[in-house]
Amino acid sequence: MSCLYYPQISVDCVVFGYDERQLKVLVVKKDVDNSTVVVNNVKLPGSIIKSEEDLDSAATRILEEYTGLSKIYLRQFKAFGNPVRSSDADVLWTQKVVSLGITRLVTVGYVALIKLGKKVSLKSSDGMYAEWVDVSECKKLHLAFDHKDIIRDALENIKMMIKSEPHLLFELVPKKFTLLQVRALYDSIYEKKSDAANFRKFIFSIPGVAALPEVESGVPHRAARYFTYIKPKR
Amino acid sequence: MSCLYYPQISVDCVVFGYDERQLKVLVVKKDVDNSTVVVNNVKLPGSIIKSEEDLDSAATRILEEYTGLSKIYLRQFKAFGNPVRSSDADVLWTQKVVSLGITRLVTVGYVALIKLGKKVSLKSSDGMYAEWVDVSECKKLHLAFDHKDIIRDALENIKMMIKSEPHLLFELVPKKFTLLQVRALYDSIYEKKSDAANFRKFIFSIPGVAALPEVESGVPHRAARYFTYIKPKR
Repeated sequence: MSCLYYPQISVDCVVFGYDERQLKVLVVKKDVDNSTVVVNNVKLPGSIIKSEEDLDSAATRILEEYTGLSKIYLRQFKAFGNPVRSSDADVLWTQKVVSLGITRLVTVGYVALIKLGKKVSLKSSDGMYAEWVDVSECKKLHLAFDHKDIIRDALENIKMMIKSEPHLLFELVPKKFTLLQVRALYDSIYEKKSDAANFRKFIFSIPGVAALPEVESGVPHRAARYFTYIKPKR
Repeated sequence: MSCLYYPQISVDCVVFGYDERQLKVLVVKKDVDNSTVVVNNVKLPGSIIKSEEDLDSAATRILEEYTGLSKIYLRQFKAFGNPVRSSDADVLWTQKVVSLGITRLVTVGYVALIKLGKKVSLKSSDGMYAEWVDVSECKKLHLAFDHKDIIRDALENIKMMIKSEPHLLFELVPKKFTLLQVRALYDSIYEKKSDAANFRKFIFSIPGVAALPEVESGVPHRAARYFTYIKPKR
């Protein structure tokens, strides 16, 4: 290899959450006071990996920094290494943050699934603050690097994963859920209206789904039964 | 980030082939003339990515270098970044090959599936020669880096992928195959003996499997029908 160059490796997390209306994704922002350079100041929560840090540990650290959560579903899904994935503005920004002369950045994408609720309080880290945006709104946002592609691929990945591991749906709803809640989530992920009877069959085919002796209270419609998911022992 | 360090990114390919008896994996070797240092001289075909090269292009290049093949099933499956994945001997070897002072190497693993046959002729590249070894023999080999873990994970990955995309089996058998051939391959991958009737049902449930108007000739047992797989148009 004749050409000497110094790439760096980062980890970026596509964190999905569901607020019972919309599938959301976590982005981080920085208010930049710079009138001469256009900086893409919205990106995925991520970080260059530290010298002694494993990829999984880096992803766990990033998630904890921005959400305070540690025990959530988190999985590597794809590495992104297009040599032109960083614009000049992105490189400039990264160099400012890490004080490194970076010529190329390869990133490893992770998917995380979070139950939105009282327990999630977003935090700031490195002067960046985290914010939920609707997945449907992402297409309109101007994101740094190839982060729009990473979100698109992460979404395709969870659609595929839910087909082989449908219990992943329960990572996004409260521990106690109604069928209507899961169906609304499912429809939100696949962007289509599913058939109620077929969906019922599909959910009951997942080992570990159990009815609770409890129904909704104080609702204007007929009270729906609550269900839960108990991971079967292998 | 206070600690300045220079990682490099490589691509390693786990190339599976099937010779109608055993599932095989491609390794590369180098005859090292060095009596003072113990060098792990068996590894996966791989390379540090070039400065202007995409990850997929690097994997395609590596495969073509060692097998002469370009149009084969190739897919990224996982990045490996454990900070201690390279032993001192591995680092020394890498430094010799690429003349770089590498402190850390993160690799992106690819899986490739090859039909073994007359068309595959292994080649040498960079003084390394390629060789097929039985997957079952891999456990006994002393491989460089964490390449044994990478092969294990790649095998788990194809087992999982075949469950959701069973047509991947046909990437490993000749274009014209008998049910017995595919079943022997399947049993070799999953390391178990499958039931003939159930396997028949399973294969016929894959869209695109078609019977050919042709049976085996010159076999001592009852001649079996040939089948083929035609990828359905979406």
